[in-house]
Amino acid sequence: MKNYALGLDYGTNSVRAVVINLSNGREVVQLIENYPSGRNGIITDPENPHLARQNPADYIYCLKNIGKKLQRILRRKGIHSENIIGIGVDTTGSTPIPVDENLVPLCFKREFRTNKNAMAWLWKDHVSADEAEEITNLARKIRPQYLSKIGGVYSSEWFFSKILHLSRTDKKVFQASASFVELADFIPAMLVGCKKPSDVIRSICAAGHKAMYNQQWGGLPDEEFLVMLNPAFKGLRAKLYEKAYPAGTKVGGLSKYWADKLGLVEGTAVSVGAFDAHMGAVGAGIDENILVKIMGTSTCDIMIFPKDKNIPDIPGLCGIVPDSVIPGFIGLEAGQSAVGDIFYWFLKTFLPEKRRNVYNYYTRLARNIKPGASGLLALDWHNGNRTILVDQKLTGLILGFTLGTKPEEVYRALIEATGFGARIIIERIEEYGVNVESIVACGGLPDKNPLLMQIYADITGKEIKISASEQTCAVGAAIFGAIAAGKEKSGFENVREAQKKICRFKIIKYKPVQTNHSVYNQIYRHYKKLHDIFGTPQYKENLYDVMKDLLKIRLSIRD
Amino acid sequence: MKNYALGLDYGTNSVRAVVINLSNGREVVQLIENYPSGRNGIITDPENPHLARQNPADYIYCLKNIGKKLQRILRRKGIHSENIIGIGVDTTGSTPIPVDENLVPLCFKREFRTNKNAMAWLWKDHVSADEAEEITNLARKIRPQYLSKIGGVYSSEWFFSKILHLSRTDKKVFQASASFVELADFIPAMLVGCKKPSDVIRSICAAGHKAMYNQQWGGLPDEEFLVMLNPAFKGLRAKLYEKAYPAGTKVGGLSKYWADKLGLVEGTAVSVGAFDAHMGAVGAGIDENILVKIMGTSTCDIMIFPKDKNIPDIPGLCGIVPDSVIPGFIGLEAGQSAVGDIFYWFLKTFLPEKRRNVYNYYTRLARNIKPGASGLLALDWHNGNRTILVDQKLTGLILGFTLGTKPEEVYRALIEATGFGARIIIERIEEYGVNVESIVACGGLPDKNPLLMQIYADITGKEIKISASEQTCAVGAAIFGAIAAGKEKSGFENVREAQKKICRFKIIKYKPVQTNHSVYNQIYRHYKKLHDIFGTPQYKENLYDVMKDLLKIRLSIRD
Repeated sequence: MKNYALGLDYGTNSVRAVVINLSNGREVVQLIENYPSGRNGIITDPENPHLARQNPADYIYCLKNIGKKLQRILRRKGIHSENIIGIGVDTTGSTPIPVDENLVPLCFKREFRTNKNAMAWLWKDHVSADEAEEITNLARKIRPQYLSKIGGVYSSEWFFSKILHLSRTDKKVFQASASFVELADFIPAMLVGCKKPSDVIRSICAAGHKAMYNQQWGGLPDEEFLVMLNPAFKGLRAKLYEKAYPAGTKVGGLSKYWADKLGLVEGTAVSVGAFDAHMGAVGAGIDENILVKIMGTSTCDIMIFPKDKNIPDIPGLCGIVPDSVIPGFIGLEAGQSAVGDIFYWFLKTFLPEKRRNVYNYYTRLARNIKPGASGLLALDWHNGNRTILVDQKLTGLILGFTLGTKPEEVYRALIEATGFGARIIIERIEEYGVNVESIVACGGLPDKNPLLMQIYADITGKEIKISASEQTCAVGAAIFGAIAAGKEKSGFENVREAQKKICRFKIIKYKPVQTNHSVYNQIYRHYKKLHDIFGTPQYKENLYDVMKDLLKIRLSIRD
Repeated sequence: MKNYALGLDYGTNSVRAVVINLSNGREVVQLIENYPSGRNGIITDPENPHLARQNPADYIYCLKNIGKKLQRILRRKGIHSENIIGIGVDTTGSTPIPVDENLVPLCFKREFRTNKNAMAWLWKDHVSADEAEEITNLARKIRPQYLSKIGGVYSSEWFFSKILHLSRTDKKVFQASASFVELADFIPAMLVGCKKPSDVIRSICAAGHKAMYNQQWGGLPDEEFLVMLNPAFKGLRAKLYEKAYPAGTKVGGLSKYWADKLGLVEGTAVSVGAFDAHMGAVGAGIDENILVKIMGTSTCDIMIFPKDKNIPDIPGLCGIVPDSVIPGFIGLEAGQSAVGDIFYWFLKTFLPEKRRNVYNYYTRLARNIKPGASGLLALDWHNGNRTILVDQKLTGLILGFTLGTKPEEVYRALIEATGFGARIIIERIEEYGVNVESIVACGGLPDKNPLLMQIYADITGKEIKISASEQTCAVGAAIFGAIAAGKEKSGFENVREAQKKICRFKIIKYKPVQTNHSVYNQIYRHYKKLHDIFGTPQYKENLYDVMKDLLKIRLSIRD
């Protein structure tokens, strides 16, 4: 009897679902539903370029649509619902949702219906840059341990920055919030019919990477620390949680309501959620000394280490969290705030009418440009820098323009910039004694853009393999769904055993071309210099304030 | 009896001709002929983005076409050819032409017909960057005086850099050259039927600003200096000239051949030529403490001072040359290597199909963006930096990109960058004790782009007037044509008397808006910082080599 598991992947613009055959990893169902609200699912604010929210109704709406299609497909393929033994969920994050005492998102209530602050605060929302700085500064002063596992800097993309910003700018929504629930925790809780914030099983991945949770200091930051950030935070800690759990832990059984909507059996095991990149890394076949890059609008880098290996705190890395990727291993997360987003922005903004498929057209032209031949160099900070600078107040830069500079040269320079950014992360990890032997890439980009992958291999000097699945996040989620169902049903002792059955690579591999690598070594030297001088405060000729001050001026103009 | 004068303005893309009424400045004829060769008259090389040449046949072809039209118009208007008392000529420069012993451009000869090195080396040709550096270095060591009047750095755009590059890279053309003649000298010589390089009357404007000519050290650089640059320069000085003359000096009378072609009287006075910006400044009504900006593809800034005023050598200024603008005054030249060119490049390269009139469309959008609101900052070095850095190996930079950056914001940032570049020049001049009271703008841009003028006023904090003529260069040339004809015919004692009759301003004036000015003061601080750190070698955290090294890498790839 074949067993299957369902993986749900809540991305930035859409939900993807896969059903995998647990005996061979084959994806028997692949579904995608785009969020209907905003622009590509993102609600923005013309007055504030840093704001990015989502309508939680989209999460439910899309899942119901997936349920309808899933039932049809399963019927057609003759797959019995009782053979789907578990459900796993991954989502973007940190994407906290303010909820009421019944676990209802506040924006579903009449009084907050059009209030963007009562919606989900999408990971890429950067309105809380000042608050992130404040949290970093306070922690440095009185709780340095809180920063030791998250790279030394708390980000504006993260849980407490967003809540602090909310508490200052929209007291009504803040006071009406019975709790704040990460999307990665909200969906599993919803699936099992959880009705109270205090009953939500929280993910250690979200807690450890974004909310300064660690058992070393008793879980979340202490009340005293929180109240020093804002007196209104008195009582906040009690509204949140004491303990967080690794993915693979069973949250509960599927509720009757959702069993009907999805055409599955009531009581089917639902796993604790995690962030997309983490489950994606598992779906891509992560192992020791392999860096998994989940490449899409932004990029996440994941590595794992055995718990007994003594990994130092690495400055600028987003997180070093036990059990966050695979139980029993320490998970390490890094990332770039924008990758595919930068190419999309450039091609769609500047060359919208050039060709029907502007993306393929310019990729073809860019392929014919040799490394170094354009004379261009860019900094890929259009959405700030997540790793290793952890600074959302940085912006993109391009230099080397002449009157002959062509669009395809700029496009290639932007690709290269993200490659140099990737190399900075790898070098930082290796500086601290961790060897990156090779890279496995997954996500939307690697498949669409072989040029990008070759450039990354040439810049980093590392071989890059590509995950065979185009839905590694959802596949990873499905693996955790199977684990949550227990060994008896799934047949898997642990996650790594499941990976061996399920994860595969494509035949194509990208190997560094030595001549290209040595040209890129020369250019990388300058990238590193620009990176350090614009991105760090320690230089005498201070360019560190240039980008920040321009943003400050910009905001003062908009007000 | 009304008197008239003809002005011929040989620009980068076309020849313009005006006939002005000397009693009131009215332009009774305005003609324009585009060069037929290359792209907009410029011959480029796909292998070398720095190369820019012109076909001298274009100069003759266009003048003949102008002659045909001129004859028709004069007949129709009832203007008698004997009333056109003088002809003045201005051209781009330094634009040297290799010629044979009969003053025939070498590219007219069969053996050199398709050889770009035998054509005119257009001012914006930058292949000679290394040679410029070499000349600067040698002069610094053994003839520092040669650099004292040209801002301390010899440019790749100038006469000897180009000849040195030619002598190294195309020995055949170099050896076949009986002389090298600036376009500003070539056209007047051609008009009077000069047949020998040694008979060409050379302009002090070209000689002093671009060829290190100064009576203080006996004219051109000495033979020893030249031979140290290249042993093949032995004998070069003798092929050039001993003495140069100010515009307004009569070169001779119009030849029979050209009198026929132009429909004018044989023997009509032809003035010594000068560069477009210098004659443009005269046509625009230059006076003490007024900075004239001739704004087009690039920008030239001109000021004048009485000879008795003790003007110090100003580092980075392209030239401080007696008699180069108006006889009796010291002329001071500065400039920006690309202004209109940058806007053209950006709009045509990135937004070619956006709107029928992309220029007006984006200017309209850019007008609605407030200073500082885009968060962008650019360096206007797409064609190098002429003043005050005198460095062609600098390139353009834009920073402040976010994923929301719009094309019109980039366009406005590029306009602002050229405005900041203009302010750098003004501040340098004022640092050395020369007061810039106000600005007069002329050339193609000010009329076409009021937004640009307002941004310049807001950035510089100076009032800007606009010359009433759209052809100030040709008007200036006509003034010198009249002066060359002598007081008896023209009625003018000197150039300034002629200016009073002829030069006028438009009613519209651009005054700085104080709120904008103070935002721009904040942003300018950062522009200055980027300018200094990327453009000068004295900083410890050395970004000075970034752009240069990228160009070096680029060239190594192309080879």
